[in-house]
Amino acid sequence: MSRPLSVALAGLGTVGGGVLKLLRDNADNVAARAGRAIAVTAVSARDRSRDRGVPLSGLRWYDDPVALAADPGVDVVVELIGGSEGPARALAEATIQAGKPLVTANKALLAIHGADLARQAEKRGVTLAFEAAVAGGIPVIKALREGLAGNRITAVAGILNGTCNYILTQMRERGREFAEVLADAQKLGYAEADPSFDIDGVDAAHKLAILAALAFGRPVAFDHVHVEGIRRVSALDIAFANELGYRIKLLGIARQTEAGIDTRVHPCMVPQSAPIATVDGVFNAVVAEGDFVGRVMLTGRGAGAGPTASAVAADLIDIARDRRTPVWGAAGAALSSAPSMPMDQHVGCYYLRLMVVDRPGVIADVTAILRDMGISLESMLQRGRSPGEAVPVVLVTHETQEGAMRQALAMIGKLPTVMEEPTLIRIEVS
Amino acid sequence: MSRPLSVALAGLGTVGGGVLKLLRDNADNVAARAGRAIAVTAVSARDRSRDRGVPLSGLRWYDDPVALAADPGVDVVVELIGGSEGPARALAEATIQAGKPLVTANKALLAIHGADLARQAEKRGVTLAFEAAVAGGIPVIKALREGLAGNRITAVAGILNGTCNYILTQMRERGREFAEVLADAQKLGYAEADPSFDIDGVDAAHKLAILAALAFGRPVAFDHVHVEGIRRVSALDIAFANELGYRIKLLGIARQTEAGIDTRVHPCMVPQSAPIATVDGVFNAVVAEGDFVGRVMLTGRGAGAGPTASAVAADLIDIARDRRTPVWGAAGAALSSAPSMPMDQHVGCYYLRLMVVDRPGVIADVTAILRDMGISLESMLQRGRSPGEAVPVVLVTHETQEGAMRQALAMIGKLPTVMEEPTLIRIEVS
Repeated sequence: MSRPLSVALAGLGTVGGGVLKLLRDNADNVAARAGRAIAVTAVSARDRSRDRGVPLSGLRWYDDPVALAADPGVDVVVELIGGSEGPARALAEATIQAGKPLVTANKALLAIHGADLARQAEKRGVTLAFEAAVAGGIPVIKALREGLAGNRITAVAGILNGTCNYILTQMRERGREFAEVLADAQKLGYAEADPSFDIDGVDAAHKLAILAALAFGRPVAFDHVHVEGIRRVSALDIAFANELGYRIKLLGIARQTEAGIDTRVHPCMVPQSAPIATVDGVFNAVVAEGDFVGRVMLTGRGAGAGPTASAVAADLIDIARDRRTPVWGAAGAALSSAPSMPMDQHVGCYYLRLMVVDRPGVIADVTAILRDMGISLESMLQRGRSPGEAVPVVLVTHETQEGAMRQALAMIGKLPTVMEEPTLIRIEVS
Repeated sequence: MSRPLSVALAGLGTVGGGVLKLLRDNADNVAARAGRAIAVTAVSARDRSRDRGVPLSGLRWYDDPVALAADPGVDVVVELIGGSEGPARALAEATIQAGKPLVTANKALLAIHGADLARQAEKRGVTLAFEAAVAGGIPVIKALREGLAGNRITAVAGILNGTCNYILTQMRERGREFAEVLADAQKLGYAEADPSFDIDGVDAAHKLAILAALAFGRPVAFDHVHVEGIRRVSALDIAFANELGYRIKLLGIARQTEAGIDTRVHPCMVPQSAPIATVDGVFNAVVAEGDFVGRVMLTGRGAGAGPTASAVAADLIDIARDRRTPVWGAAGAALSSAPSMPMDQHVGCYYLRLMVVDRPGVIADVTAILRDMGISLESMLQRGRSPGEAVPVVLVTHETQEGAMRQALAMIGKLPTVMEEPTLIRIEVS
């Protein structure tokens, strides 16, 4: 066996503690798989005194995480600080510039600066590994970048945010409203005190941007992802979805179309019989479609100390074995420059829920607008009567273009008989 | 880019044709992912004249596949001949002895001679790759051997034979008997003319033996797998399963227990709400449980030209990139020598269906035997009355040991009021 791989760990929160624990508890197993021992020798964290349940004596401590990169006793740096800027970004750049492999769980950093970091890593000939950045312990980066590498990937989609999936599952199972379930999720620690990163879809969009880059072999392009969160999904929509044979899931979807690569994160109605519809609670799922392999789905826990540590350990074992893969699956010169598709060119079916005054002629006004925009209806549902008051009306369209749908929606929203901003949820049948 | 990787292909049936097609259709993509072109330059197949839908001119043809290994223009050999002996085995050994990497889709070869081949490969320092041998295009070998390598795997289980899963799904959906569905499956090409390899569980057992070796990091031990097929599952059992809240699936299960590693293939009752219960038709699924990652499930197509070619291509890309992993995840010296658990020590719940004469006292005789063997009952079902004739009785036990259950079964089978050999199906709740 070779000498141990010496690891520096920046960030000793829940995940950092998990990595320390895994490398200690499973040391023999990891050494057998890696062909050599893997040992944390240096760390950086704000609080030196906090009990992390793992002895930290004998480790070199740094107040400035960036200093880890320069430590001559460090072979590889694991960045678990988080955030796309500040110390995380500075450490990533310093590590690459020092010619050392970088392992990171930081999806924001990769989504926003990944293209640049990948170029730097290629130039310096170092590994940039990030299995932990998407879908926790599910080995989806490896699956896309290596396991399915013989395929042209036509689409990749997934449930990429456990907080949103937990909230939507609770809303469905308990028939409760978004705000109530969110408050409970915060109490249970399933949602952050400031939950906007999760519930507004930003976290899922970071992950989708990374998956799309791997699937289509092009540099990550977070700016091109269309992002909507789940704040506007109501208990009413979940009940209607059920009636129509759907489940509401926050999906990230990247698809190769004739007009370019369509990347979007938003609530979707998926058929109850679709495998992804059965993935509930904090679980994540990723579905990839390849021209030879067909459809492959991977499910598991998308967050937490254990799953994330599992992903970090896999990256470290790859580095210990010197198994190398270019960041986006191909060398920079061989990457695709496929264009992104603007969202207004997206084509699909739509669920539209309006709160309208319950009186004759209202539906006629709405359907006239849809007709004028060339949008044809598959079905219309009105449940409950309450003359003179607001009642929900649901319209399901046939395939239409997002641009036309958006225009129709703006006009419908201005009708005096429409009482609230309309809710639009895209239907994903394939 | 380096010079092309020169591939020899032994066997040009459905899968061989698929590999040729993938490497031709996706040549650019594969070259980008592999860092170099991958080209088939030599082939061996019995019939030179058959149209395989892919031009074969310019390739070096060999009548004897073993000769491929010695061709100095060949960098890597892909063995798609099949069978654990004869030319497949001879070619595998010749390739390794020639110091060339071997890619194979041959689960029988690996299950039976894998321990020996792995030793030879390690000695010669060559890669033995077999992503295509288990679960078709689902990258499960890579997931277990690399993606989850930081974990102690506590269990791996799966639907590993698409033919059996198709037959069981059709029986359930159409309420039909095994023999009828098998005959239809044979007409449709989903089952072989001689289906015994599939329906008797042997194919699934080969795959399970390989998965268990990877999961637990020990040399493959096919002889230790307990194997039962699906011939004895009747439409009646499927109807009872439904009533009890289960689905019947042929599972391969390998689990670390205190008494050793329990590896078994047999029909199982799984709760309808279990994710694996929803994997129907020709689809395969593999569930792995790791101490840090928790439970991860991978699903997709487990057979066919496209999925298998996808797996072979992934192995070739790994070889082109020189990404190396020991056959069972660790070097020979670091492999586990964990013992196997004999099947009679297995502990679980059992479904027992008897055909008994419908008269008073019959159930009392049966339950007395179970009581004497220390087996306690969770429930008993008898549907339909037909005095003096054979009627089905279903008994569901609490947890008990296989050895006791087998003894009880032998005694119950000898009761004069029990008309047919009892059907026993194990219940898997976790």
